[in-house]
Amino acid sequence: MRAQTAMIVALAIGAVLVVSGQTGRPATLVVVGGTVITGDPAGRILSPGAVAIGGAEILAVDTPDAIHSRYRATETVMARDQIVMPGLVNTHTHAPMVMYRGLADDLPLMEWLEQYIFPAEAGTVSPEFVRVGTRLALLEMIESGTTTFADMYYFEEEIAKATREAGMRGMLGQTIIRFPVADAKTPAEGLARAEAFIKAFGRDELIVRAVAPHAMYTLDKETLVASAELGRRLRAPVLIHLAETAEEVRNARQVHHMTPTGYLDAIGFWGPRSVVAHGVWVDDDDIQILKRHRVGVSHNPVSNMKLASGTAPTLKYLAAGVALGLGTDGAASNNDLDMFETMKQAALLAKLSAGDPTKIPARTALELATIGGARALGLEQAIGSLEVGKRADLIVIGTASARQTPLYDPISHLLYASRGTDVRTTIVNGKILMKDRQLRTLDASQVLADARRLSVKVREAVGR
Amino acid sequence: MRAQTAMIVALAIGAVLVVSGQTGRPATLVVVGGTVITGDPAGRILSPGAVAIGGAEILAVDTPDAIHSRYRATETVMARDQIVMPGLVNTHTHAPMVMYRGLADDLPLMEWLEQYIFPAEAGTVSPEFVRVGTRLALLEMIESGTTTFADMYYFEEEIAKATREAGMRGMLGQTIIRFPVADAKTPAEGLARAEAFIKAFGRDELIVRAVAPHAMYTLDKETLVASAELGRRLRAPVLIHLAETAEEVRNARQVHHMTPTGYLDAIGFWGPRSVVAHGVWVDDDDIQILKRHRVGVSHNPVSNMKLASGTAPTLKYLAAGVALGLGTDGAASNNDLDMFETMKQAALLAKLSAGDPTKIPARTALELATIGGARALGLEQAIGSLEVGKRADLIVIGTASARQTPLYDPISHLLYASRGTDVRTTIVNGKILMKDRQLRTLDASQVLADARRLSVKVREAVGR
Repeated sequence: MRAQTAMIVALAIGAVLVVSGQTGRPATLVVVGGTVITGDPAGRILSPGAVAIGGAEILAVDTPDAIHSRYRATETVMARDQIVMPGLVNTHTHAPMVMYRGLADDLPLMEWLEQYIFPAEAGTVSPEFVRVGTRLALLEMIESGTTTFADMYYFEEEIAKATREAGMRGMLGQTIIRFPVADAKTPAEGLARAEAFIKAFGRDELIVRAVAPHAMYTLDKETLVASAELGRRLRAPVLIHLAETAEEVRNARQVHHMTPTGYLDAIGFWGPRSVVAHGVWVDDDDIQILKRHRVGVSHNPVSNMKLASGTAPTLKYLAAGVALGLGTDGAASNNDLDMFETMKQAALLAKLSAGDPTKIPARTALELATIGGARALGLEQAIGSLEVGKRADLIVIGTASARQTPLYDPISHLLYASRGTDVRTTIVNGKILMKDRQLRTLDASQVLADARRLSVKVREAVGR
Repeated sequence: MRAQTAMIVALAIGAVLVVSGQTGRPATLVVVGGTVITGDPAGRILSPGAVAIGGAEILAVDTPDAIHSRYRATETVMARDQIVMPGLVNTHTHAPMVMYRGLADDLPLMEWLEQYIFPAEAGTVSPEFVRVGTRLALLEMIESGTTTFADMYYFEEEIAKATREAGMRGMLGQTIIRFPVADAKTPAEGLARAEAFIKAFGRDELIVRAVAPHAMYTLDKETLVASAELGRRLRAPVLIHLAETAEEVRNARQVHHMTPTGYLDAIGFWGPRSVVAHGVWVDDDDIQILKRHRVGVSHNPVSNMKLASGTAPTLKYLAAGVALGLGTDGAASNNDLDMFETMKQAALLAKLSAGDPTKIPARTALELATIGGARALGLEQAIGSLEVGKRADLIVIGTASARQTPLYDPISHLLYASRGTDVRTTIVNGKILMKDRQLRTLDASQVLADARRLSVKVREAVGR
């Protein structure tokens, strides 16, 4: 009788409450109310909707009433008037490079690299620097709704540890590059480091360990082939920069008489676990090569515009059925890790370059940032949508601001009127990392203080 | 002795306090601490700096110590660790169209207009609608750091009243258009309305009344000429859309054998108080015409990308010395009024289109959004920079977020890592409109509730 009264009161005030003590299967977490954008193949949107989570797994996505009648929740996130959706998948970044954010902008590419980024890296990259920078990046990503990120950097084991501690999901690639860097004097050392990282860092629900040969123009043939073989042998993804600039293609044609994509094909580099960043300057044959080998492509529109790299042929990738996701690139060339900005930019840039406002509509852009990114990383069985049996990676976004008022279409608002700052709650693998903007796995003020302290060294390294 | 002790304590805790009761000239408001980006011709940046304000006027911009020793402040805004800069000037919008934000996106231009925007306007635009919509737009603009906006819409007297009440600065143009609209059945009625608005609405420190013939393709020659003459007669600016799409130029060439810019020149339309929105499809002769007549140009990169209108030749405008500012356009085609997003987009789009990352560097983009916009509107004597004698239009921006950490260069962060949501305090004409995100002249929850209530009518008007 009392439970009935409670239900009537709950309905009378227009709220949907999950009353504890009722019968039903246990759920560790229920997210209830608001609009649930599932991103499932049918594009189902429940308004209101609810998601029941058991441990790391999504148990059910249904109406609040149905979830309420079937589950008893240990913890409940009330998301009334908010949007619940799959977490965002950032398919390309260099997490610790947040430490170089705004260090130098608006410069010719080589001047930017040679006078700022390379000296800064030479003078500052260390295990401690990578830990501090990664935590700062994780804080920014959790605060702006990213739940999975793909990374290429040095001391990747430190990135993996910080990512695991923060409860974030990552595909983390140890970089291999021709010139001497902080964690390896030679590409051979880099290769050994990558192998050691993958073998030593234990299996983890959150971390996919990867090999990250930097690019075809910063490695010789032997190292490229060895990187690809290492990936195959250890069943690890292989992440690489590809065709970011027109110059890269010109050089490849001069030296190898092939495009970068064609060259990597010719040496047997590509496999179904390859993921390329940028893919701006590719021709139709290149796209067919990437499609044939089921290579994932990370489109980085903000970085490509800021560095004047060019416009990736996203419509051609989509038409060819290439697995396309979105990335922010490192914060030194963006200068933030906000996937909401990147989603909007992907939509706007496609419209502008095609001269057609119907291209990459809001729904498609949202897919690119979620299930598209999951596909590009080969993780679409586990993440990218809110479906029963998938990992519980989801975010809750507020819609109450003037900027988001009125609300006719939640997908339009997610794309064209929302920001990372509108994200209220971030859940990865069933665990709440941020609830109502309060971080649970990172000490935000400590993370910021550590980053500010280390930034003095960065300044010194470039003489600013 | 007590004052000395207070000073020592203040210095000891690292804060700079303006101790009341000291000698000095009175100031109604002092903004103190943090980094002050003056935007003056020398590009002076004071870190720390302070601004003393007397009534509506900037009395001094100097170090906190100098301001402290010379002024006694009635109210003080502490901006430690924050950035103080001139308020942002949005040179083109249609404020009440925030009510159509996200109503329809990603459609071919004519379908979007004819199936959504025009029916929505026909079914909903009224004095009440314009009041409600304008207040929502004002809320969003104040919250995101805009202190002046140029507007073209219907029932402009309602926009002027709401703007004055909210304490915002506006250049407000009554629209004149060929087809019947909510406030005028004919262009002649529109002209009469514009004249009545300018004459009836009293002189006001904040409001510049303007005439807004919609575009050369939506008006006949007589009305265009009459609009320009009305502006000259009443010394009012004349705002017009120009060369937004390639189709507009094709049609003008077919019908008039001239570009839109050339046609308006031929009929004697242009004058030094003309302001054009978009100016995407202009050739070198057009740019010379605009320069010769000292026409201001409003560049709207986000809208131009979303509607696939094209890329305005901003570098050519700048090289020719045309007064160039930035605008968001109406929220139906953006979908927000965030000038921070527009600034970043202006920089990114210039780099991409020129294939050169050095184009429109951060400092230039910031100028376009402040003093550039002021020049485009012919208000550069009054606003656009923090200089003694100018109106006190300024904003305070927080820099403490993870996204803005570390901070090497405040101008880089304003452009590439900040959002409207980082604005803490907005001051127009010496009056605080928002302090630490708390609105002072608008009842935010009432504004949002009114907008949500009216949005039901908008939905009905388009059958959604």
